[in-house]
Amino acid sequence: MQLKTPKISEAVVRRLPVYLRYLEQLKERSIRTVSSLELGNQLDMNPAQIRKDLAYFGEFGRKGIGYEVLYLVDKIKQILKLDHELSVVLVGTGHLGIALSNYNNYKRDKLTIVALFDADPNKVNTEIGTLRIQPLHELKETVSRLQIKMGIITVPAHSAQEVADALVEAGIKAILNFAPIKLRVPPKVIVRTSDLTMELQALAYYMDPES
Amino acid sequence: MQLKTPKISEAVVRRLPVYLRYLEQLKERSIRTVSSLELGNQLDMNPAQIRKDLAYFGEFGRKGIGYEVLYLVDKIKQILKLDHELSVVLVGTGHLGIALSNYNNYKRDKLTIVALFDADPNKVNTEIGTLRIQPLHELKETVSRLQIKMGIITVPAHSAQEVADALVEAGIKAILNFAPIKLRVPPKVIVRTSDLTMELQALAYYMDPES
Repeated sequence: MQLKTPKISEAVVRRLPVYLRYLEQLKERSIRTVSSLELGNQLDMNPAQIRKDLAYFGEFGRKGIGYEVLYLVDKIKQILKLDHELSVVLVGTGHLGIALSNYNNYKRDKLTIVALFDADPNKVNTEIGTLRIQPLHELKETVSRLQIKMGIITVPAHSAQEVADALVEAGIKAILNFAPIKLRVPPKVIVRTSDLTMELQALAYYMDPES
Repeated sequence: MQLKTPKISEAVVRRLPVYLRYLEQLKERSIRTVSSLELGNQLDMNPAQIRKDLAYFGEFGRKGIGYEVLYLVDKIKQILKLDHELSVVLVGTGHLGIALSNYNNYKRDKLTIVALFDADPNKVNTEIGTLRIQPLHELKETVSRLQIKMGIITVPAHSAQEVADALVEAGIKAILNFAPIKLRVPPKVIVRTSDLTMELQALAYYMDPES
């Protein structure tokens, strides 16, 4: 397995799912075209920025008409590789891990959590949805057998590095980390750390503490 | 209570917590100054964009030296109003709700979840950490008494609008919504919908499905 050389900035890649989510809402409402101006208004972004982002991937929009919703949904999914089945392993079946596993139930893309792991012997062999929680010593064999490329870490901070090492050792190429520490991984592995509190912090800006 | 008129774009406000998180790591490592170039490298963002974002709030950087870490941490916290105590109510104590409540335990800012609510009579009056889960009919009185301004919705999609209505009725001014639906609220109330799967989608871009 070889990683594709990223051609576009991480910031653009992070915005694509935001566009996708809104475009899928338009699709559900059977709306056929949308302009960068409407997208900008809805997403509170600069329309020129949106046009520039989408132009990275070819000329999708047409002057005076805008973007065709169905075409753009398909194209963004293709760019994000969401048109391929992609198997994900999750380690750490605490509350957040279970919440993420449950997202499988109403997902609209081909990303699927296919295996769950936990270090706690009391949890091992119990089930969440249709998946059996497995012990960590089965990680490498399962990742290899199911051709899993992405991992989610939802263990406490003190065990996150150890789990990351095990995921890398098992052949995982991209990790979404919810533990509040900075993980050390080889350069060929991509890590994103997600922090649920950052969105709350951004909302705080809009509050007036004096009133 | 009156909302402050947002002077800067939502996109900038969303980036500030990202800067803050990295700057706090530098602070912990006793690093005193950082350039926009270093910030850009670490965060995979354009240094010119970073300088532009931070310039909204005054001239913090100095040519040849960069930004003073301690000063910038304090300033961003001040801008995001994280230097004031801000009380948050959470409705929906499923797995995600409990995971978010647990974040209180290692938070570094003054945002605090101070009340938990759930519609399930089996959960009401049980405790999570130091908080007792309350029934929804106590919402208005609690929000008023504790001067709560922000709410988090972690209920299933089918009950989210009803909960949003109750939060607005109780006087909540900003909502962070984790249910996968678009909420209708009065224009004076700010809603952000968070989707845990979007970060996974962005990571998928980096995977090569052929290998």
